[in-house]
Amino acid sequence: MSLTVIGTVALDSVESPFGKIEEGLGGSATHFSISAAFFSPISLVAVIGEDFPEEHIQFLKSRSINIDDLQKLAGPSFRWKGRYDYDLNTAHTLDTQLNVLTQFDPQLSSQAKQNPFVFLANIDPKLQKKVISQVANKPFIAADTMNFWIEGARDSLLEMLKDIDMLVINEAEARLLAQEYNLLKASNKIREMGPKILLIKRGEYGALAFYEDKIFNAPALPLEDIQDPTGAGDSFAGGVMGYLAKTQDTSFNNLKKAMIYGSVMASFNVEKFSLDRLRNLTHPEIEKRYQAFCELSHFENYELSA
Amino acid sequence: MSLTVIGTVALDSVESPFGKIEEGLGGSATHFSISAAFFSPISLVAVIGEDFPEEHIQFLKSRSINIDDLQKLAGPSFRWKGRYDYDLNTAHTLDTQLNVLTQFDPQLSSQAKQNPFVFLANIDPKLQKKVISQVANKPFIAADTMNFWIEGARDSLLEMLKDIDMLVINEAEARLLAQEYNLLKASNKIREMGPKILLIKRGEYGALAFYEDKIFNAPALPLEDIQDPTGAGDSFAGGVMGYLAKTQDTSFNNLKKAMIYGSVMASFNVEKFSLDRLRNLTHPEIEKRYQAFCELSHFENYELSA
Repeated sequence: MSLTVIGTVALDSVESPFGKIEEGLGGSATHFSISAAFFSPISLVAVIGEDFPEEHIQFLKSRSINIDDLQKLAGPSFRWKGRYDYDLNTAHTLDTQLNVLTQFDPQLSSQAKQNPFVFLANIDPKLQKKVISQVANKPFIAADTMNFWIEGARDSLLEMLKDIDMLVINEAEARLLAQEYNLLKASNKIREMGPKILLIKRGEYGALAFYEDKIFNAPALPLEDIQDPTGAGDSFAGGVMGYLAKTQDTSFNNLKKAMIYGSVMASFNVEKFSLDRLRNLTHPEIEKRYQAFCELSHFENYELSA
Repeated sequence: MSLTVIGTVALDSVESPFGKIEEGLGGSATHFSISAAFFSPISLVAVIGEDFPEEHIQFLKSRSINIDDLQKLAGPSFRWKGRYDYDLNTAHTLDTQLNVLTQFDPQLSSQAKQNPFVFLANIDPKLQKKVISQVANKPFIAADTMNFWIEGARDSLLEMLKDIDMLVINEAEARLLAQEYNLLKASNKIREMGPKILLIKRGEYGALAFYEDKIFNAPALPLEDIQDPTGAGDSFAGGVMGYLAKTQDTSFNNLKKAMIYGSVMASFNVEKFSLDRLRNLTHPEIEKRYQAFCELSHFENYELSA
């Protein structure tokens, strides 16, 4: 079963204490798609400029990513420039050039409209709404957003939230959106806004799922080498949604497994700059790391062992 | 089986956005002992001043805490004054009055010397060393410390570390001690200093255990009401060591369960000021919350379910 994603495709320039990259392949929809494609076919809804390198397009095509909805418009591609210090949880934006992103008007192809799973990666909530208005057959819809939209486009964001099943945001965004510091209280307020399921990303501390009255804590694996955390949240969401689309099962138990796959994909994403670690990643490596996550968090249930 | 702890017994004045307390019962050894006493008898090695309220001594005695090694010296008791903002992870110290703590010279009773488990709570590493030199029969020794000693008494701290089995510190302390930002690399450097086992406390994000080449991630339960995080780390250590002493088993599997009990005790500790939540805590409540931690972190192992 297939998955539609809308978001950004970008050229990222990133510096961290561990190296740098100039105009590497980036963007929320790109990280999401490359990660999700390990589990499910993808329809990628996004925009690029005339200067977008052909090799990146060929790379996307080489995965099970359908680029029929990848519009090429006149003008330069969207670019982001950022820097990380040793605290890799915080990205410092040095420059953002929206370029063709300002003219983006998604018109979904028949395939993209029909997919039973949809992910609205971080982009203007007005564009996210536009996708929601075009999809058919009530798909399972999840979305991401960021501080910029929570603060600057709150009304259209709240409109979008009414129509989705799951929101995937980070801890600071959850607090800002709910205007509540306590995460448990914030999660309840956010779920009153629309999404029945809330995933809260906590970077090197893992992720939490709030699902009906239940909570799940997905751990993060301590890693020896982290070069570039850009797109880790999108790779996480890609693993989650890719696994859900593959299994067509959005039960709490299956969502937990999906979150571990998401965490696995995020853990690979950060090991190299841009998407470089995912370029040569194999399914056996994914399964091996899933197993490491099992070992990381398994303990004996006292009730069972007593 | 019993457990010896050395550390501070204090009168704490604490303010948080959720209330305040004046001269409440506090101190690293106090939080540790009250928590550990739910699992094991304790010998408490500490010092108090002449002004220490009799009701607090009676409270300690009402638990399975042996106070033969609780010295009363001339002068006022140790006092700490602190404040928390909404970010409850960071304590802002407003005032510290060492008072009788400066004259403390622990001379262990026969019982305290014989106990097979020893915890050196946060206190001058010279005093921690003094306890190590007095214990008999090679007990299992664990220790805590803080930034103040890592920066100001590094040499005696490193001496102390050589003689312990397990170190229990927070994330920032681990980075400072190892002089290494990456936690995995830091954990390896610290274990070269002496302790074979390292527990890293991460506040609302749980705790990590580094044990031989294995890692365990103990989750933290998102809580609705947190009033005062003072002593949460000591309550955690109390639950860990209390359970280890009760079960006399320091294997990795049993340490994991001990860490969940530690996390359970810390989660109760923060719900009210001082030790007030632990005053009326019951064993069924502890077991019920242990079960909540199981549910929080359990997911299906793909290998088993596929």
